[in-house]
Amino acid sequence: MSKPSVGFVGLGAMGFGMATHLVKEGYPVHGFDVFPASVDRFEAAGGIPASSLKDSASEKQYYVCMVASAPQAQSVLFGEDGIVSVLPKNATLLLCSTVPASYAQSVAAELQSRGRGDIQFIDAPVSGGAKRAADGTLSIMAGAPEAALESGRFLLEAMSDSNKLYLVPGGIGAGSNMKMVHQVLAGIHILGASEAMGFAAQLGLDAKKTAEAIKSSDAWSWMHENRLQRMLEEDWHPGASALTIILKDVGIITTSARQNQFPTPLCSTAEQVYLSALLQGYGAVDDSSMVRQYYPAAITKVSNTKSAEETAEAQQLVLDLMQLTNLVAAAEAIAFAGYLNVDLKQFFTLVSDAAGASRQFMTKGLEMIDGRIGQNSESVNDVITRLEKAVQTARDLHCPLHLGNAAMNVLFLAKKAGFGAEGSTSVIKVFGN
Amino acid sequence: MSKPSVGFVGLGAMGFGMATHLVKEGYPVHGFDVFPASVDRFEAAGGIPASSLKDSASEKQYYVCMVASAPQAQSVLFGEDGIVSVLPKNATLLLCSTVPASYAQSVAAELQSRGRGDIQFIDAPVSGGAKRAADGTLSIMAGAPEAALESGRFLLEAMSDSNKLYLVPGGIGAGSNMKMVHQVLAGIHILGASEAMGFAAQLGLDAKKTAEAIKSSDAWSWMHENRLQRMLEEDWHPGASALTIILKDVGIITTSARQNQFPTPLCSTAEQVYLSALLQGYGAVDDSSMVRQYYPAAITKVSNTKSAEETAEAQQLVLDLMQLTNLVAAAEAIAFAGYLNVDLKQFFTLVSDAAGASRQFMTKGLEMIDGRIGQNSESVNDVITRLEKAVQTARDLHCPLHLGNAAMNVLFLAKKAGFGAEGSTSVIKVFGN
Repeated sequence: MSKPSVGFVGLGAMGFGMATHLVKEGYPVHGFDVFPASVDRFEAAGGIPASSLKDSASEKQYYVCMVASAPQAQSVLFGEDGIVSVLPKNATLLLCSTVPASYAQSVAAELQSRGRGDIQFIDAPVSGGAKRAADGTLSIMAGAPEAALESGRFLLEAMSDSNKLYLVPGGIGAGSNMKMVHQVLAGIHILGASEAMGFAAQLGLDAKKTAEAIKSSDAWSWMHENRLQRMLEEDWHPGASALTIILKDVGIITTSARQNQFPTPLCSTAEQVYLSALLQGYGAVDDSSMVRQYYPAAITKVSNTKSAEETAEAQQLVLDLMQLTNLVAAAEAIAFAGYLNVDLKQFFTLVSDAAGASRQFMTKGLEMIDGRIGQNSESVNDVITRLEKAVQTARDLHCPLHLGNAAMNVLFLAKKAGFGAEGSTSVIKVFGN
Repeated sequence: MSKPSVGFVGLGAMGFGMATHLVKEGYPVHGFDVFPASVDRFEAAGGIPASSLKDSASEKQYYVCMVASAPQAQSVLFGEDGIVSVLPKNATLLLCSTVPASYAQSVAAELQSRGRGDIQFIDAPVSGGAKRAADGTLSIMAGAPEAALESGRFLLEAMSDSNKLYLVPGGIGAGSNMKMVHQVLAGIHILGASEAMGFAAQLGLDAKKTAEAIKSSDAWSWMHENRLQRMLEEDWHPGASALTIILKDVGIITTSARQNQFPTPLCSTAEQVYLSALLQGYGAVDDSSMVRQYYPAAITKVSNTKSAEETAEAQQLVLDLMQLTNLVAAAEAIAFAGYLNVDLKQFFTLVSDAAGASRQFMTKGLEMIDGRIGQNSESVNDVITRLEKAVQTARDLHCPLHLGNAAMNVLFLAKKAGFGAEGSTSVIKVFGN
């Protein structure tokens, strides 16, 4: 049986990989992009070039929208030449762009109000980067009514890793919320990786050795490990993870946090540093360049002149900073996810195997999710003592520590709220949980 | 009767003014500084040059130390050539440098341990700038045992404005604490002035007209009015208020906050931005240059193309941002002052007529101090709604809003803690008050 035709819009780094993977799987994929060069490249890779946006959708029973943002999606779906007016009856439409949950819900509402309630709409943001997109091994967080999920499932399965397709309960918007709360961790950890490595450089530590110590410690984060090589090589050229990408995702988070009047002090702090860097011209370069917000030169140029004992002591400050920032980040993300009624067990499974992972999330975060809050043996007061030392040392070195200070203040607020003697996981209670 | 000789160390911008004013008042002042040029300049202004640090103290019954920091004071007082070993019996020693209260207390203890408990030591930080120093109209916050205060009072009076000499109850350290909690406001408002004016520029508003609107509104702060001209003229050259000066004061605050495990989210946020600017090379220039952290060009070059209605709406966002940042700043400063047992009535009197003043402090801050917390008609929820609009608009413009976002998150935490429906002054309860 021949495979059905698929329409596809958005042939950027991720979209190109997804669309060409579907081609490899045997689907006739009709691709469109506002950049003709992208369409040509898609054709060269075996895809079928669409002559217009409408052409990409005409008579396509299945359609994937992978443009960069909600405004772009709105234009593609409902604009003057939008696809919704030409999609055939009962077509299945996957919105894979990262958008606010409220936007995904507005799409469902607008489909109804325009008399296209027949369209099987799936809110299905993806994660994993360009390589996994091309391999068909993305993580996908799909939320939709049962019938739509059933109809689009084969496409979701084709683009995702077999154990990384998350059918998120809660209908339209639930997939986007799941992706969003995952990005709370990603948004904090990306800056956290730079903050830790910049602080290490200010301390006079060897970058590679410190990174190795981080990787094998409780301070580990996926983002640190992933960004490390680019940070060491100062390979910030376009193609990897431009600052504007995480900035867009973080903007969705803080906008949603404001709509929900929910505090996200660390993510919001990271956002302000990203915006500052944008103002300095870092928008198009890799987000591992954020290390420059902490140290003015290449961190690999630092040569350690400390004794073994001094080195161990200084390195411990870096580990403490990163571990405890990640602890507060886990609390912030889990609290926000809980507030949004995200399925926390599924959230845990997803994060543990994705870019938002950290050792703290997987241990202390799990305790928070399992309702074992405040039961761990190291108290809020204990972690305050450890983090204080790192923060004070950074201050003495005139090293900014945006996240470390934000985490410090959240811990002080936890103490003020009366949780100082409880286990450190009680920091989540500051967020009203 | 001839006036007594006075020894003086630290002939920088402030110290030079103070010492030469004492000369004008008829005191034989023996001045020393590590920079010989400063001593020469002092001699040219009628002062008596000391040939060495010890010479400045030998046989001087009264001594003023106005060096830049606690480490410098420690060296001047107790170093190898320090003055404590040569000051005559029962000499009166004024430490006017801005230092942590814990440092002032350590001086008292070290005087005892070195067998110089006879020295009448006064912890007397000053405020007001170089001009008021030269006019003898500084604000002075003096704390000491009664006998010491009595002995040094004539000198304190000679250097201060008649209604700006604050004899702070609480002994040694109390003066420094009073100055420190005042600087919580100063440290936040200096950045706040730049944040508001940078946001206005990003909104496309005329800088001068926006500034006039701020000055006559609830958003007014002393720092905004004081820094405005330099911000408009981009007159950032040394001589005014170098970034490193407020950075030093803010460092004393956050270090003390950590020692007390007290949250200072706004002051700490300001500190991180100052440290970032230091890394960018702004250390020696005027702190009004912080506007560059928000807008990349001269704010006076913005030409407003909005309608009158659009202008009014945009301007209101700037006023809301600044007013509500100042509200949370007042809560943070008052809560910390209360925690340190600072006399809050005296704190209010001092701030109202000093560089830390803001309309919010003088109205909502007074209500907090008077125990009328949560009784004002505009609720926490109400101010959240106003601030949200400003913060979201800034985000849409990609304008960093470090303090605005920090204030927003403090207000969200107040809401999470259950104070949303109470008057907005209840935000102080987040700090454990």
